Amino acid sequence: MTKLKADRYEIRFSGSGGQGIITAAVVLAEAIAGSGKNHVCQTQSYGPEARGGTSKAEVVISKDLIDYPKVIELDLLLAMNQASCDTYFPDLKPEGLLVVDSTLVDQIPTDRSISIPFTQIAVKQAGKKLVANMVALGAVVHLTRVISPKALESTLMAKVPKGTEQMNLKAFRSGIRAAKKFDLEQLPPTVTPEEEEV
Amino acid sequence: MTKLKADRYEIRFSGSGGQGIITAAVVLAEAIAGSGKNHVCQTQSYGPEARGGTSKAEVVISKDLIDYPKVIELDLLLAMNQASCDTYFPDLKPEGLLVVDSTLVDQIPTDRSISIPFTQIAVKQAGKKLVANMVALGAVVHLTRVISPKALESTLMAKVPKGTEQMNLKAFRSGIRAAKKFDLEQLPPTVTPEEEEV
Repeated sequence: MTKLKADRYEIRFSGSGGQGIITAAVVLAEAIAGSGKNHVCQTQSYGPEARGGTSKAEVVISKDLIDYPKVIELDLLLAMNQASCDTYFPDLKPEGLLVVDSTLVDQIPTDRSISIPFTQIAVKQAGKKLVANMVALGAVVHLTRVISPKALESTLMAKVPKGTEQMNLKAFRSGIRAAKKFDLEQLPPTVTPEEEEV
Repeated sequence: MTKLKADRYEIRFSGSGGQGIITAAVVLAEAIAGSGKNHVCQTQSYGPEARGGTSKAEVVISKDLIDYPKVIELDLLLAMNQASCDTYFPDLKPEGLLVVDSTLVDQIPTDRSISIPFTQIAVKQAGKKLVANMVALGAVVHLTRVISPKALESTLMAKVPKGTEQMNLKAFRSGIRAAKKFDLEQLPPTVTPEEEEV
């Protein structure tokens, strides 16, 4: 298990219903929990006001007991569609990171972002766009290093429906490979849009 | 959608890993969210101190925006094994309700409880103990009336793995039928164990 740099790390997975947002969050949370070093809370919130076309699932990781499990300052936002990118981008903290599925998101509000065509990779590498969530999870695991890929893989194999393990694993590994092409050090230090800078 | 009597209603599903605790909670939360009347938060918390043999998932339903999504005063505890019954029973509020899988729980700490052999029913009625979670969900839906069975069924059909819909549906309906045999009015008004009463 990678050690957390900060005391608390907050991730939001977002997209439309049917993109497997909750499954990705549950697999990540259980893998981290299984590694036994940190506290994890995984939450879905829904309301009558549910913001159009967006579904979200959060994972909060902490060295200490988590009393407040909702996102306070978002460290990483994964946006699997344009609506969720638009809706949740303002919740990122200044030094947070935006990760988008470039197959479905083309208006990206910050240069401090990683664009990977998760859906396209899922189709090409694993044969089904259904597993775009696992491609994205691979990227998130590589970029955040909140858990080792190995530890995550064993949770993934146990949690996905029987018969789909290999497809999901392939998708996950494709996501890691895609994310390895990026260097976080090359990104601007904050998500503040350029027009708001002096 | 049934109207909530109180402003907030808190349910915890608990058992051992592999009993489908999280799936049951996610299906319930999404069904309630889909009905569009109330706010719902669904949370899993894990920690290095993870209490032996227990897994839990919570659903908080509220008329108002949910700022604090963890359980404050538990209205209903579903315990699918003895360890989770022992561990979480103290979190029930006095007028709360304990629901246990009597296949696996035989030491029941209160008479304000409903005992149903969820695992045994799952095997007999649906052919697999794997769907004991949906039998239990049927009972919870009937006992709490937080959502109509019809509304829940359509979410269930969409969320369970393809090919398992009918088995899960059968299990869910068996749980409703089993719970219908109980009359909550016949239970003592509080969970306080008899020996603590004067």
